[in-house]
Amino acid sequence: MLKGPQADVRILPISMHQKDDAGPYLTMACVMKSMTDGFYDITFTKNMYYEPRRMSFSAHAHHHLEAMTTEYEKKNKRAPVIVVLGHHPAFYLSSCCMTPYGNNDYLTASAFLQEPLRLTPSETWGEDFLVPADAEVIIEAEVPPHVRESQNPFGEILGYYQLEMKVPVIEVTAITHRKNAIVEDFMPGQMDHWNLGGIPKEGSVFNIIKKNLPGIKAIHLPPSGCSRVICYISIKKEFINDPNKAAMQAFVEMPNLKLAVVVDDDIDVFNEREVLWAVGTRTHWDKDIEIVRKVQSFRGWLGDSVAMIDATRPLKGDFPKRNEVPEDAMERVKKFFK
Amino acid sequence: MLKGPQADVRILPISMHQKDDAGPYLTMACVMKSMTDGFYDITFTKNMYYEPRRMSFSAHAHHHLEAMTTEYEKKNKRAPVIVVLGHHPAFYLSSCCMTPYGNNDYLTASAFLQEPLRLTPSETWGEDFLVPADAEVIIEAEVPPHVRESQNPFGEILGYYQLEMKVPVIEVTAITHRKNAIVEDFMPGQMDHWNLGGIPKEGSVFNIIKKNLPGIKAIHLPPSGCSRVICYISIKKEFINDPNKAAMQAFVEMPNLKLAVVVDDDIDVFNEREVLWAVGTRTHWDKDIEIVRKVQSFRGWLGDSVAMIDATRPLKGDFPKRNEVPEDAMERVKKFFK
Amino acid sequence: MLKGPQADVRILPISMHQKDDAGPYLTMACVMKSMTDGFYDITFTKNMYYEPRRMSFSAHAHHHLEAMTTEYEKKNKRAPVIVVLGHHPAFYLSSCCMTPYGNNDYLTASAFLQEPLRLTPSETWGEDFLVPADAEVIIEAEVPPHVRESQNPFGEILGYYQLEMKVPVIEVTAITHRKNAIVEDFMPGQMDHWNLGGIPKEGSVFNIIKKNLPGIKAIHLPPSGCSRVICYISIKKEFINDPNKAAMQAFVEMPNLKLAVVVDDDIDVFNEREVLWAVGTRTHWDKDIEIVRKVQSFRGWLGDSVAMIDATRPLKGDFPKRNEVPEDAMERVKKFFK
Amino acid sequence: MLKGPQADVRILPISMHQKDDAGPYLTMACVMKSMTDGFYDITFTKNMYYEPRRMSFSAHAHHHLEAMTTEYEKKNKRAPVIVVLGHHPAFYLSSCCMTPYGNNDYLTASAFLQEPLRLTPSETWGEDFLVPADAEVIIEAEVPPHVRESQNPFGEILGYYQLEMKVPVIEVTAITHRKNAIVEDFMPGQMDHWNLGGIPKEGSVFNIIKKNLPGIKAIHLPPSGCSRVICYISIKKEFINDPNKAAMQAFVEMPNLKLAVVVDDDIDVFNEREVLWAVGTRTHWDKDIEIVRKVQSFRGWLGDSVAMIDATRPLKGDFPKRNEVPEDAMERVKKFFK
Amino acid sequence: MLKGPQADVRILPISMHQKDDAGPYLTMACVMKSMTDGFYDITFTKNMYYEPRRMSFSAHAHHHLEAMTTEYEKKNKRAPVIVVLGHHPAFYLSSCCMTPYGNNDYLTASAFLQEPLRLTPSETWGEDFLVPADAEVIIEAEVPPHVRESQNPFGEILGYYQLEMKVPVIEVTAITHRKNAIVEDFMPGQMDHWNLGGIPKEGSVFNIIKKNLPGIKAIHLPPSGCSRVICYISIKKEFINDPNKAAMQAFVEMPNLKLAVVVDDDIDVFNEREVLWAVGTRTHWDKDIEIVRKVQSFRGWLGDSVAMIDATRPLKGDFPKRNEVPEDAMERVKKFFK
Amino acid sequence: MLKGPQADVRILPISMHQKDDAGPYLTMACVMKSMTDGFYDITFTKNMYYEPRRMSFSAHAHHHLEAMTTEYEKKNKRAPVIVVLGHHPAFYLSSCCMTPYGNNDYLTASAFLQEPLRLTPSETWGEDFLVPADAEVIIEAEVPPHVRESQNPFGEILGYYQLEMKVPVIEVTAITHRKNAIVEDFMPGQMDHWNLGGIPKEGSVFNIIKKNLPGIKAIHLPPSGCSRVICYISIKKEFINDPNKAAMQAFVEMPNLKLAVVVDDDIDVFNEREVLWAVGTRTHWDKDIEIVRKVQSFRGWLGDSVAMIDATRPLKGDFPKRNEVPEDAMERVKKFFK
Repeated sequence: MLKGPQADVRILPISMHQKDDAGPYLTMACVMKSMTDGFYDITFTKNMYYEPRRMSFSAHAHHHLEAMTTEYEKKNKRAPVIVVLGHHPAFYLSSCCMTPYGNNDYLTASAFLQEPLRLTPSETWGEDFLVPADAEVIIEAEVPPHVRESQNPFGEILGYYQLEMKVPVIEVTAITHRKNAIVEDFMPGQMDHWNLGGIPKEGSVFNIIKKNLPGIKAIHLPPSGCSRVICYISIKKEFINDPNKAAMQAFVEMPNLKLAVVVDDDIDVFNEREVLWAVGTRTHWDKDIEIVRKVQSFRGWLGDSVAMIDATRPLKGDFPKRNEVPEDAMERVKKFFK
Repeated sequence: MLKGPQADVRILPISMHQKDDAGPYLTMACVMKSMTDGFYDITFTKNMYYEPRRMSFSAHAHHHLEAMTTEYEKKNKRAPVIVVLGHHPAFYLSSCCMTPYGNNDYLTASAFLQEPLRLTPSETWGEDFLVPADAEVIIEAEVPPHVRESQNPFGEILGYYQLEMKVPVIEVTAITHRKNAIVEDFMPGQMDHWNLGGIPKEGSVFNIIKKNLPGIKAIHLPPSGCSRVICYISIKKEFINDPNKAAMQAFVEMPNLKLAVVVDDDIDVFNEREVLWAVGTRTHWDKDIEIVRKVQSFRGWLGDSVAMIDATRPLKGDFPKRNEVPEDAMERVKKFFK
Repeated sequence: MLKGPQADVRILPISMHQKDDAGPYLTMACVMKSMTDGFYDITFTKNMYYEPRRMSFSAHAHHHLEAMTTEYEKKNKRAPVIVVLGHHPAFYLSSCCMTPYGNNDYLTASAFLQEPLRLTPSETWGEDFLVPADAEVIIEAEVPPHVRESQNPFGEILGYYQLEMKVPVIEVTAITHRKNAIVEDFMPGQMDHWNLGGIPKEGSVFNIIKKNLPGIKAIHLPPSGCSRVICYISIKKEFINDPNKAAMQAFVEMPNLKLAVVVDDDIDVFNEREVLWAVGTRTHWDKDIEIVRKVQSFRGWLGDSVAMIDATRPLKGDFPKRNEVPEDAMERVKKFFK
Repeated sequence: MLKGPQADVRILPISMHQKDDAGPYLTMACVMKSMTDGFYDITFTKNMYYEPRRMSFSAHAHHHLEAMTTEYEKKNKRAPVIVVLGHHPAFYLSSCCMTPYGNNDYLTASAFLQEPLRLTPSETWGEDFLVPADAEVIIEAEVPPHVRESQNPFGEILGYYQLEMKVPVIEVTAITHRKNAIVEDFMPGQMDHWNLGGIPKEGSVFNIIKKNLPGIKAIHLPPSGCSRVICYISIKKEFINDPNKAAMQAFVEMPNLKLAVVVDDDIDVFNEREVLWAVGTRTHWDKDIEIVRKVQSFRGWLGDSVAMIDATRPLKGDFPKRNEVPEDAMERVKKFFK
Repeated sequence: MLKGPQADVRILPISMHQKDDAGPYLTMACVMKSMTDGFYDITFTKNMYYEPRRMSFSAHAHHHLEAMTTEYEKKNKRAPVIVVLGHHPAFYLSSCCMTPYGNNDYLTASAFLQEPLRLTPSETWGEDFLVPADAEVIIEAEVPPHVRESQNPFGEILGYYQLEMKVPVIEVTAITHRKNAIVEDFMPGQMDHWNLGGIPKEGSVFNIIKKNLPGIKAIHLPPSGCSRVICYISIKKEFINDPNKAAMQAFVEMPNLKLAVVVDDDIDVFNEREVLWAVGTRTHWDKDIEIVRKVQSFRGWLGDSVAMIDATRPLKGDFPKRNEVPEDAMERVKKFFK
Repeated sequence: MLKGPQADVRILPISMHQKDDAGPYLTMACVMKSMTDGFYDITFTKNMYYEPRRMSFSAHAHHHLEAMTTEYEKKNKRAPVIVVLGHHPAFYLSSCCMTPYGNNDYLTASAFLQEPLRLTPSETWGEDFLVPADAEVIIEAEVPPHVRESQNPFGEILGYYQLEMKVPVIEVTAITHRKNAIVEDFMPGQMDHWNLGGIPKEGSVFNIIKKNLPGIKAIHLPPSGCSRVICYISIKKEFINDPNKAAMQAFVEMPNLKLAVVVDDDIDVFNEREVLWAVGTRTHWDKDIEIVRKVQSFRGWLGDSVAMIDATRPLKGDFPKRNEVPEDAMERVKKFFK
């Protein structure tokens, strides 16, 4: 445990991730506590190194951390925050769930861990702010109100650098860690980053679509779309509007999505080649793509229009049958090559 | 060498390829000779087994073999034809070149072999019809004029069964083969089928586009599109119309193409995930896709409309930079993991 | 209580509703009980008079009653069903809730009544099928398996006659009623019909949209659209895509919807003139309407395409201010006219 | 009669109409006389109070008053003008007729009054400028050449404030009035304003459409569209192009129109709910709306694109019949409720 | 004068016009008289030869002659009709005016002749039916009620054969002619046919457009469009919507029109090359063409969609200036070449 | 031969062409020689008069002359150039061929002349730069590196003035000429200018289209489109996609093209009236025009979108037959009028 002047973050390995990053960053999750309602919020965010005890705090507009920071700033108070560098994967997955503001994320983490998240008083604020007892490293810090500093460029999830912007800062009050602690970090804009964001979304969006479209079979946010801008959905089509119903729900749930492709249930959405085979052979481009404007809103350079491709076979009319090798023949072939 | 009643094709392994195929088929190339102009034409086509000395002859409308068959039928003559089951790969690749009608394909095969194709008189027609001397197996046969029989269903290149249709037939006159000959055949609608069609087209279309668009970098007909209905092109964009110029030329050259995606030269067109990443992050769907009707014409169930997706970055305006890890860092990582 | 031959429905007032209706109909709700899982399902449906003890049973494809009828038909059993003609309004409203198949609707009715729904054994099946104790009139009947008869034309909710179709029938076993019972019935394609369907939907769709769009203010299914094909939504717009997000969710939830108009929160969606004023003065028709095909699916003659009109003011740019009379002036005027 | 310094308009009630109006305005009609051709022109226009004997003169570009003012300015002369505050309603309705420039509007007013408009010499210019003898109040004034002053904001007909702009001014020379005169004024952007503009247009546009489309039944400029931007037309459709023919003529005649809805003759265009019911149930959005750019031109913030909605039933194909209650049944019901 | 059996139309030259015409036709105008209202109607129509005293009567649906024929048929009467083969050109031009049904066309002809049309009693009906005194040849005939016979194919105005159809017939009662009379006839689908239809329309449509668009300069129905399906309009553009306003009015007036091109007033609409130069250099195809469906209605094979091309320069922005040779230089050149 | 100070271009007639041209220009071809590869390049370009021995050199971006000039500038050398004012027409036509950069245009000129182009050493550079021996006048000059001066406005090929721009200059070193030499020049934006550009393109584009569309019959770049922005193509249509295939190839080959119209082979593409007749009667505007964005790129004010109009008859369905006068009848008519 390091406090005061000893709490120098340079004892931690802080990586430069990409060539044009503005500096080294930590990329893991922060925890804040609602000033008024007492719940804890865990959110992935990055912290850029400024000085030994001062880092950036990337609390984005319209996100939970910004809402919380604002609560304290309105009262001109310093907001306590911790950076958790290393914990059970379930702890981090839980923070990617689309829980509403007001949810106590410590409880959600407990649910993912399938046992209560062990907590302990913090060094800085004691019982007023509990911290995970089993973290590898925890940085305790405070957000001074109304301070904004420059952060970025930083190579982000979609594979492009995020531009310089003004964000709040954190001032480190303490660093605690396990013995021989291992600092966790991920490589932005790569597979681990995408999986973290994509897998929980696939599950929750699947469930929401299923409510109005019981015939949904699977959903995938492929790495080609950074698990964010492209979505593949397979359905057992019963009505002519099933594909667009599925796609529209996906766009409503995922505000960064730009392309949704809906395929029949003979297509494996986790196999991109199959999905494209359906697009290539089943899509009539004058009838089966709907381009809708003003649907995507988060990043200006992505544009606001989206595409829904219906790559399912028509319900009526004679569409040809797929090639098929009999299963027993395949078995014999497999034996032959053993 | 087997002649007359001995020329029973059942001595050859003829495969059932797909579950609902109408019967066993040979899938290799046939050779015919122009009755009036004397040149030889080599074309891939399939032959379905009917009787020991009788097979179908799938000479499609608007193709070379049909043109030749018609020459003989007009004079009420039996057309000689040979089926070549096994030869040097260059022999077969040469037959996929987009050579015009009237080309002597024996010379093209020689060019691919980089030495003269060795020929020998046929058993049936002697010096009047020369056959490749180094083939594994050759079936010599004749097409009786004005005869048409049923063929198909047969699982074809796009992964769907081709419907029953009427085609000419061949009547076997002789079978010749090397000792211990190996009969060659390919699996329709699979990788070997696609490569055969795709690789020569990639080369010839690349050259044609390059004439008007020197900045073209690469072209790929991915297996997802059965090397036929989808095309990826990368260019170094200089003008706003370069992407659509490339795409339009591709559609003119390849009448089955349904989707052309044009990307910048930082994208590897042989890596489908990268191509889709460009589509996902660089395409503004209200501006960067052109859907054109009445462009694709061959198969009714494919529809006639096509899509050109311009997934290149805009020439003007501030599009963000790609993430980039310094090369020396990558080197160090690679060493670390060795 | 009337049983056997006495159970003649002609003792009840059964109305001819529209000029070209195929005959008199009852228009209230039926209750069935799941053969396998024991839950009760209450659904509005109509019954056309055939004979004194025989009526139609309009169990539509893809609805709950049809699913239940099928359960019994598969086992070749007669399905018990009751027609409830008159009960507390909460009983009927509860049946318009979009509860999933498998829900015990007697419990939902209890929730709407804010006390347990009082039940009593039926005359025909005793404890095996409980019926509401406080209904005005109950017809007990059975659906013979695999019987289908003609029903309709019948003037339906959208203001048009539904065409003749084949439906199951019910055979009456008993009629029970309170003293001086009043038979309830509604006029199809009129206000009472629309309210019944519209009000519960407005609530549930509002809640679903709110999850992803907290800025939603109100939603209305106006009588002009028979509370079914037109939807007005007002929002406090924060992002450019808020209007289409709201509209897409509405289309996903309400498969008959054909037109969604989204307005700013200064517009009262229950005042059609105000909504149209927003459409007339705030919609730029080349940018603010999205027409999407293959979204509506239920009735063929309605077509499958829908329209989303964004009648909100732009977030940026100088849109003129609304006229406004100061409140105190309005007060003085009101006093003056008293 | 007040002349010279006594002609102080503050003796008249001049209203503030809306909260953010730049000041009090008179909202009635002005009369000018052509310098060269001697005809009189009556036009509704507003006058904002500046000083006791000085008001704004809102002679808009491309309108008659501006043309007349320009005649005098070119010769560097002061233009006489009178403001008529109160007269027979027919006097004012006549001024909303779409008469061409050059028409003597005193004669048109006579026609509306169905007797000659009584005139009398003005106080200021005597026989050179005749004024209505039966007006409640008349302000006589002159427009000094080449003077422009600021006017507005002012809450205008479409329900939004018109922005500040430069307009000519009038300098009052005399005020005449009847005994106990009542000053007339209307509330902009409300029903009386809309009716004034809408009713004469409905008549003249109906007549023009009828010339090429005898089957037109009725036309309405509903208050929802401020009698200006929305138009409902009912027709007895004989040809597939009747709806768009009607709509196109409406757009040609009314340059502010943005939305035209054409319905069958079973729909009452004065009942907005019925019109929307037709839109909701008879419009196939992929076929029955035409959006045309560059058709509306007057106010920049309205955009220039318009929509024509064909909400008529198709001429061919089986569209369902409307519900209908027999007339005698309705009679009986009416009697019952008396 | 020939009456009874002598009234054999074979004494007249009746031409075969086109190769596949069903027979020889007269192509001039017929006159009928309203049974109830007594006015005369002159209409161009064709008569195919059947027998010496029997010809077809091509009274098309929705035209005046058909309306009149129907009047007589309803009363089961034979309708008198005359065919006027040769008169002053003004007589025929007058019949192409777009006068409403009910107009006495003898008076319109008088107006075109600028003197009263001289009339004389007919041979067949005496004073009951007056005929032009100065015609070259007049065939008097009667239309028997409820008789329909086959007519066509006949090469029509748009350059294509009209298909076979059923029409009424005329039975000849008398033929009167001047001495050495010259039978007039025109060649369908050629310049004289087009001019006849086009010139009167250019005038009347010009006048109608001018009412709402004073800046219209000229209008032309070019022979390329058979003076019917293509229209060129030049305007002095003041507002962005002037071009489409002009085009929409043209479509409303001319129900066969399919393409309207609007150009600036530096373009001569009678010079097709100049019009196309404006289309080629001033049209931005993504902004300046409006394609509207359901506007053209008369002939099924023409389709119902139309195009409005705005080939005017933009009002704002820097469009380059036209090349211009100084007038005095042109004068010097002209002198030089004399 | 004039050298040094005598080489004053004012001895030559240099024309003012258009009223607003910046000054007099020579409009013929220049020849340069590749510094590194020794080939000669002939290109039409204009030279504006600055001073007696100094003119502009309009070497446009992306053209051959600019590439050559750049070669010399990179080495800081003066580039030799000659202006050839008068030679055999074949010499000039050859320079309009679309030969690739690197072609020795002296050889191409020889091919067009059908004999070797006679050459002779230049006055200025001797054997290092050969010049045509049979030119009327040759200006020898040098391009000083890195000098740019103002040129234009100048009335250019599309009929509009090209704006002022910076270009390199030439400094005259010698003028040689035949006795009584005639200086050649053309009038920009007129027929001779268009033919020069259009005729060679028609030939080369015809050949390229023919490779994939053997049914092409003719191609024309009409003067209405300045032989540049409009293209008419006639084909014998076999497949539904033939028209768009032809049009797309035309756009790929001619980057200034904005409108391609494809017609059947009964239409003469050199007769604009016939082409428009096909457009007027065979185009269904909702199906037969494809507007594609980002295809035209050269001049900003032309926009980047283009139109492909398919004015061919449909392959299926009953389209009416064209009118046709029998040939022998035409013969008789011709004889009659002799």
